[in-house]
Amino acid sequence: MSRRLSVSLLPELHPPHTHGGTALVIDVLRATTTATTFLEQGADAVIFAPTPEVAFARREAAGGAQVRLAGERSGVIIPGFDLGNSPLDAQRQNWAGHQIVMNTTNGTGAAHLAAQSAERVLLACLRNAPAAAVAALAYPGDLRIVCSGTNRQVSLDDCYAAGVLVRELLDRAVCQPDDSAQMVLALLNQWPDPLAALEASRHGQRLLGLGDVDAALADLALDVAFCAKVGVSDTVPRLLGSETGGLVFSANDQENTA
Amino acid sequence: MSRRLSVSLLPELHPPHTHGGTALVIDVLRATTTATTFLEQGADAVIFAPTPEVAFARREAAGGAQVRLAGERSGVIIPGFDLGNSPLDAQRQNWAGHQIVMNTTNGTGAAHLAAQSAERVLLACLRNAPAAAVAALAYPGDLRIVCSGTNRQVSLDDCYAAGVLVRELLDRAVCQPDDSAQMVLALLNQWPDPLAALEASRHGQRLLGLGDVDAALADLALDVAFCAKVGVSDTVPRLLGSETGGLVFSANDQENTA
Repeated sequence: MSRRLSVSLLPELHPPHTHGGTALVIDVLRATTTATTFLEQGADAVIFAPTPEVAFARREAAGGAQVRLAGERSGVIIPGFDLGNSPLDAQRQNWAGHQIVMNTTNGTGAAHLAAQSAERVLLACLRNAPAAAVAALAYPGDLRIVCSGTNRQVSLDDCYAAGVLVRELLDRAVCQPDDSAQMVLALLNQWPDPLAALEASRHGQRLLGLGDVDAALADLALDVAFCAKVGVSDTVPRLLGSETGGLVFSANDQENTA
Repeated sequence: MSRRLSVSLLPELHPPHTHGGTALVIDVLRATTTATTFLEQGADAVIFAPTPEVAFARREAAGGAQVRLAGERSGVIIPGFDLGNSPLDAQRQNWAGHQIVMNTTNGTGAAHLAAQSAERVLLACLRNAPAAAVAALAYPGDLRIVCSGTNRQVSLDDCYAAGVLVRELLDRAVCQPDDSAQMVLALLNQWPDPLAALEASRHGQRLLGLGDVDAALADLALDVAFCAKVGVSDTVPRLLGSETGGLVFSANDQENTA
């Protein structure tokens, strides 16, 4: 029997009969794109902290310089954090020897919710979509794509990335897509250009709008373009385990595939 | 300023900042199609009862023959009800002088939820989509399309009907579609044939499957085909008011448009 492929258009929309299996969490603008980029640039781990307070405590406990905090609220850096949620910032240096602790508006919460029911959790975005499909299909069992959404609303940007992921999965394996998986697949015909889809989303428009009103945030348009590139990264963040300080992800190529 | 046009892919997914305005509730397979057909066939009113028990009480209180109960659980007639949830059954006679009390798995609950926040509630389906768009645009304010879903899951059949309704609305008025409205619109390109979309949905497949295993339910395939016809009805059920016995809908052409 082929495996089920379900899409949660929001993290709390849990498909029936799915426990265990592999969850692919998407927050394409920008948390899962940024996490992927940190690991691609050599970070030892990316840790999704449940709150900014937990992130601060983690940096304090570490003492040294090897822990960096990255995250945003309403699109801009959290006061006291070292970095915002920009994948372009993540790409600017090599992070070998560093742990990156992230907390963002939508993506980190979605990953925590997915981790409660899935046996394995991967982070996916447009940049790593083919690699994420390959990594997910290396495991047995059902597949669930979790769209983080934006402020608890279904969000076109994440649903579009889910569509790309569904396509990459169905190209490689026989799966039974649920109604939501069929729906996100239809978005690919509507927007052949991924950047156009991200720009059409309310979330994309808000990020682009922030750049318009504040020159210091003009890079957000570059962030959106960076997030729209499909299949340019082979790095797939994989959940190693959950600590009180958060969910610990490392790159797939550092793991022993079970 | 143009009005907002939001789509709730499930009744409980409430868009932000929407109170008041007009809600268009869709349960295309089959409750809102059936309700539309009862009113088209002359019924004085269709009443969405919150539970089967309330429906029984209402028939008992009426005493005479003018109240009929219609509804289903898992696709088949509720024991003790007069009719199932079949629009074809609704079409078989003239219901002048009758009140039809309905209770179904998904649609009646969705309408109750929508009625809690909307100023006006209309019932929509593929058959009355153009007429429902015209009726909704006759009112001022924001528009919200509510997909009933199937057993609390996002359901392609309702989302497809929502896409047709979004198209009919945008053809007639300037609206600001939210991300979900843009998404359901994309379904129309994927499935140019509405019947193919309903048949691709899990809900559609289940109804067709019921007909396959039980010859007495073979009409379900005819029901699905009936529900897939776009724009063949001018009847739009409009919420007149809420009683303890349920939500009372009558046909738009019997009302004084405010």
